[in-house]
Amino acid sequence: MKNIKLTLEYDGTHFCGWQRQTGRRTVEGVLNQTLSKVLGGDIAVIGSGRTDARVHALGQVANFKTASPVPVEKIPRAVNAYLPADVAILSAEEVPPGFHARYGQKRKTYLYKIHSGRVESPLLRNRAHHEYRPLDEDAMRAALAPLMGPHDFRGFMSAGSQVENTVRTLYRGEISREKALLLIELEGNGFLYNMVRRIVGVLIEIGCGEKPIRETQAILDTGDAHRSRRLADPQGLYLKSVLYQD
Amino acid sequence: MKNIKLTLEYDGTHFCGWQRQTGRRTVEGVLNQTLSKVLGGDIAVIGSGRTDARVHALGQVANFKTASPVPVEKIPRAVNAYLPADVAILSAEEVPPGFHARYGQKRKTYLYKIHSGRVESPLLRNRAHHEYRPLDEDAMRAALAPLMGPHDFRGFMSAGSQVENTVRTLYRGEISREKALLLIELEGNGFLYNMVRRIVGVLIEIGCGEKPIRETQAILDTGDAHRSRRLADPQGLYLKSVLYQD
Repeated sequence: MKNIKLTLEYDGTHFCGWQRQTGRRTVEGVLNQTLSKVLGGDIAVIGSGRTDARVHALGQVANFKTASPVPVEKIPRAVNAYLPADVAILSAEEVPPGFHARYGQKRKTYLYKIHSGRVESPLLRNRAHHEYRPLDEDAMRAALAPLMGPHDFRGFMSAGSQVENTVRTLYRGEISREKALLLIELEGNGFLYNMVRRIVGVLIEIGCGEKPIRETQAILDTGDAHRSRRLADPQGLYLKSVLYQD
Repeated sequence: MKNIKLTLEYDGTHFCGWQRQTGRRTVEGVLNQTLSKVLGGDIAVIGSGRTDARVHALGQVANFKTASPVPVEKIPRAVNAYLPADVAILSAEEVPPGFHARYGQKRKTYLYKIHSGRVESPLLRNRAHHEYRPLDEDAMRAALAPLMGPHDFRGFMSAGSQVENTVRTLYRGEISREKALLLIELEGNGFLYNMVRRIVGVLIEIGCGEKPIRETQAILDTGDAHRSRRLADPQGLYLKSVLYQD
């Protein structure tokens, strides 16, 4: 059996998220079905982690085992020909048998796009969160800074995850502007359930002047997830890349 | 009666183009219906020109006459609340009675997006033309240069238009890159039917090395539209702005 690592792009708009669910269209479900058809056998991919409905990926990573004789470098073209147009394999490579997309030590980068403008944009409606109020980027940047490094992020986690250890490390947090889009990039060794959308939700409240800059620090200190309950929309979130240590 | 000028954005993916056709979903049809409902009367918008099915607009311009008492500055919010999410009024202003979006002297700017990459991108599939072969930007730039200025562009026109005078002036043509996207911007005093998609189609053939740089000049010289028959895809085309001379 070969162990194959895939890098994937998908438009999350018409998927009920990554994780397989009977009777629903999910990225994992579509991949399992198509890979099994093209390569034979009963293939089950392991994703680096889940993404929610409407969330996109520019570089999701998954792996699977196969005995197929199809050369690994031919897998993207062969499988993309049968995948629906809203998901694609960007690359495939053979990895050691021990590689596990979910349990491997990794760094993840998420990109979040906010469209800042008075009118909701038809061309960005499934691609960004819309905020009609002006955003103070400097305030948002100042509020993001205290989140860098290792912290207990339970105040930025949604209920419904079984995780016990809520300490995560953020290595990098950058806010930049590209015309009408405000881009927030977060890199960390892992993210709790809804952590990015909760952080961005609070940053938007701060950017609008609804909450003070010290709010992010206060949420870290109190661990009170009620204070981050106004999640930014799923369609603004992109899983950009997943890097594995070694 | 007031004469109102609208600036519009739309995602052309699910429209059968701009022009009203019975039984089909078009931008003009949806606008007429919604404006008539919100402002009263039987409103018929005049667009600056048509766009084809799947073609987008970042700044289409249209005007219409109305006796509605709704203040012009309230029109965008009032009407956007009833428009479908794939079309929006960005701004509205009252203009002199003589203003006519179609017959007024104008400059139009089109943006064309080419996604240059081995794999067709799920997130760009309705937003850009996909070209898997590498593109030589410099060759494309060199081939675009002879099209600047006034020329008879009949060699870049599709059949099916009643236009008699096929002379148009291109004021500006720029090719730039934004990550995996090649952006082509063309500004002119008017464009023949499918002119942008035919120019870009030839530029792609030149960029791939299929045709020589002198091909654009040869098409101008011969007026042979058969040589520009491989149109670039509609979903890569964006009507960016329409500027009226006074």
